[in-house]
Amino acid sequence: MTAGPRYTETVAALPATVPFTGPEAHLRAQGGTFRARLGANESAFGPSPAAIAAMERAARETWMYGDSENYDLRHAIAAGMGVGFENVIVGEGIDGLFGYLVRMVVAPGDPVVTSAGAYPTFNYHVNGFGGVLHEVPFKGDHEDPDALIETARETGAKLVYISNPDNPMGSWHDAATIERMIEAVPDGTLLVLDEAYVEFAPEGTVPRIDPADPRVMRFRTFSKAHGMAGARVGYGVGAPELVKSFDKIRNHFGMTRIAQAGALAALEDDGWLLDVVREVARSRGRIGEIAEANGLTALPSATNFVTVDCGADGDFARRVLAELMKREIFVRMPGVAPLDRCIRLTAGRPAELDALAAVLPEALAAARG
Amino acid sequence: MTAGPRYTETVAALPATVPFTGPEAHLRAQGGTFRARLGANESAFGPSPAAIAAMERAARETWMYGDSENYDLRHAIAAGMGVGFENVIVGEGIDGLFGYLVRMVVAPGDPVVTSAGAYPTFNYHVNGFGGVLHEVPFKGDHEDPDALIETARETGAKLVYISNPDNPMGSWHDAATIERMIEAVPDGTLLVLDEAYVEFAPEGTVPRIDPADPRVMRFRTFSKAHGMAGARVGYGVGAPELVKSFDKIRNHFGMTRIAQAGALAALEDDGWLLDVVREVARSRGRIGEIAEANGLTALPSATNFVTVDCGADGDFARRVLAELMKREIFVRMPGVAPLDRCIRLTAGRPAELDALAAVLPEALAAARG
Repeated sequence: MTAGPRYTETVAALPATVPFTGPEAHLRAQGGTFRARLGANESAFGPSPAAIAAMERAARETWMYGDSENYDLRHAIAAGMGVGFENVIVGEGIDGLFGYLVRMVVAPGDPVVTSAGAYPTFNYHVNGFGGVLHEVPFKGDHEDPDALIETARETGAKLVYISNPDNPMGSWHDAATIERMIEAVPDGTLLVLDEAYVEFAPEGTVPRIDPADPRVMRFRTFSKAHGMAGARVGYGVGAPELVKSFDKIRNHFGMTRIAQAGALAALEDDGWLLDVVREVARSRGRIGEIAEANGLTALPSATNFVTVDCGADGDFARRVLAELMKREIFVRMPGVAPLDRCIRLTAGRPAELDALAAVLPEALAAARG
Repeated sequence: MTAGPRYTETVAALPATVPFTGPEAHLRAQGGTFRARLGANESAFGPSPAAIAAMERAARETWMYGDSENYDLRHAIAAGMGVGFENVIVGEGIDGLFGYLVRMVVAPGDPVVTSAGAYPTFNYHVNGFGGVLHEVPFKGDHEDPDALIETARETGAKLVYISNPDNPMGSWHDAATIERMIEAVPDGTLLVLDEAYVEFAPEGTVPRIDPADPRVMRFRTFSKAHGMAGARVGYGVGAPELVKSFDKIRNHFGMTRIAQAGALAALEDDGWLLDVVREVARSRGRIGEIAEANGLTALPSATNFVTVDCGADGDFARRVLAELMKREIFVRMPGVAPLDRCIRLTAGRPAELDALAAVLPEALAAARG
């Protein structure tokens, strides 16, 4: 036998780490169940009943490939966003689209700018294609648009990433700030605007973007407000030439037929979306109360999660998280200081928050040693 | 505004062509319906009712991400194949897995060997990562293992591709031939063995492969015999180090929760699989009769399609195909001479084959002009 395949230099140098340990992997590791699944910013309020019904119907048609052009879904998204069909790309979650986008522009050694502590899966793809990440610190609990743009200019970055609202802090910038950021994007840099949580944000958060603007691509998902994380449907909105370029490399038949049907039905159910946004707001309020009752500080949030400052350093927050996990409360937390003084709690159903409220005092006590 | 993003050299040089026009794209282009959907080697016999039921149940759980480790499904596949969990990778169809595999080993300029006229999506990925394809002619209606290996040796190929049974010809090699091919794989080359259709093949087609053998990776799918093309579930079986390497780059949360549930249920329904294989054999027989009644020659097939020799050149076969499409019979055909003297007909339900039988005489007459 031979020594096996010869990997590319880029891939041979990659670590075997994964961006996130999934909820099910945690469950297997600890051999239990979750009393509250508050770690992955999934929507416990679920997809629209109309979307569930559409997916059930599509299950019978799954012997057929999905539509390789995502035609109906792209049209519906375009109509909802007030842009053209040619401005919309649909893919296997924002994660899948990030993989394609990074592949299109990042060659080994190419600079990319993001914030230290921002979305790990974006970084995973940049590293995966041999790009060089330049990380800008948060400014307080916000990503720092001016510093991101400045660093993009200094490094000649091909991509600069920002999420608005932000994950993992739940903070947000107003539309005008993002619009100024777009105006300041250096020549040859593309702004990657991750709006995964934008449906939860207050009025005035969504920037106006000319759909022909080649400086920015915005990304949204059915995983959060639409409650379809397990269906893998994300979309990007950008200039036609950029959107078209995805066709050069994407997995054309990569979308499942069921997900296409479900997303289309979800888009048509505005009432459900509004209900979910209201439920999430209520749940955020409850998390704030639970935090306060335990002497912790809930940060303001424009997302479906609340980032809670545990009032000490990262080691302490990691102990709190571990004690919660021991008690079958699944949560995650920011990965870098000083953001890692916090834990991040997804908006959950009342019973889940009851479970959180019941165990948080003892988890904190145990963490305090 | 700037000129937009700076693409990598590899991506900038890629054409905007797609590997296949999807069935729905054809439907939109011609504005009609299909009386028979016989072009994409989907399974009109559908998935197991147990798989449909599992997918319907999972639709309600789609607010949760799928299991990033595909744990249960990998275990079930491993048990069925008699290999270890560590030998199995699950991904977004064989297409998705090919994308990952090619990315792992093919850098710009690296040689890859396949057969002229073999699976276009494999070539799409090789081109997409800047690889250089060396194409070996079929030997008659079979891929040519000796010539493939010889060309791999001459070119120092990183990958050499073979499908067994073959698409688009439906031909096959016996297990011993593939086993000899594996023994002959040059140092540093990986044999990509595409067994997408293997469930339909006669006894004696499936090679015995040591799951620790680093020279070969075999690929299978739930898209064909399991009738789940629209669910995007493929798997690869190979040496643990190679399998593990996918974790460096794959979209970890890329599998839908519904597809995971459906595939697991499908695997457990052996009876359904056997029924489908029998139905397909019956359908192949009927296609053979229809071909013969029209003076055409059906080639022997170990797949869920029958490749039919139209008895003249590629131009004639393309006219036959166009005339069938005009009559709402969706079919495809091989892309290169001399294979393109044929059209390829997927095993269909009796009503679809009735529709084929009804229009084939006039389609042939029209093609003969």
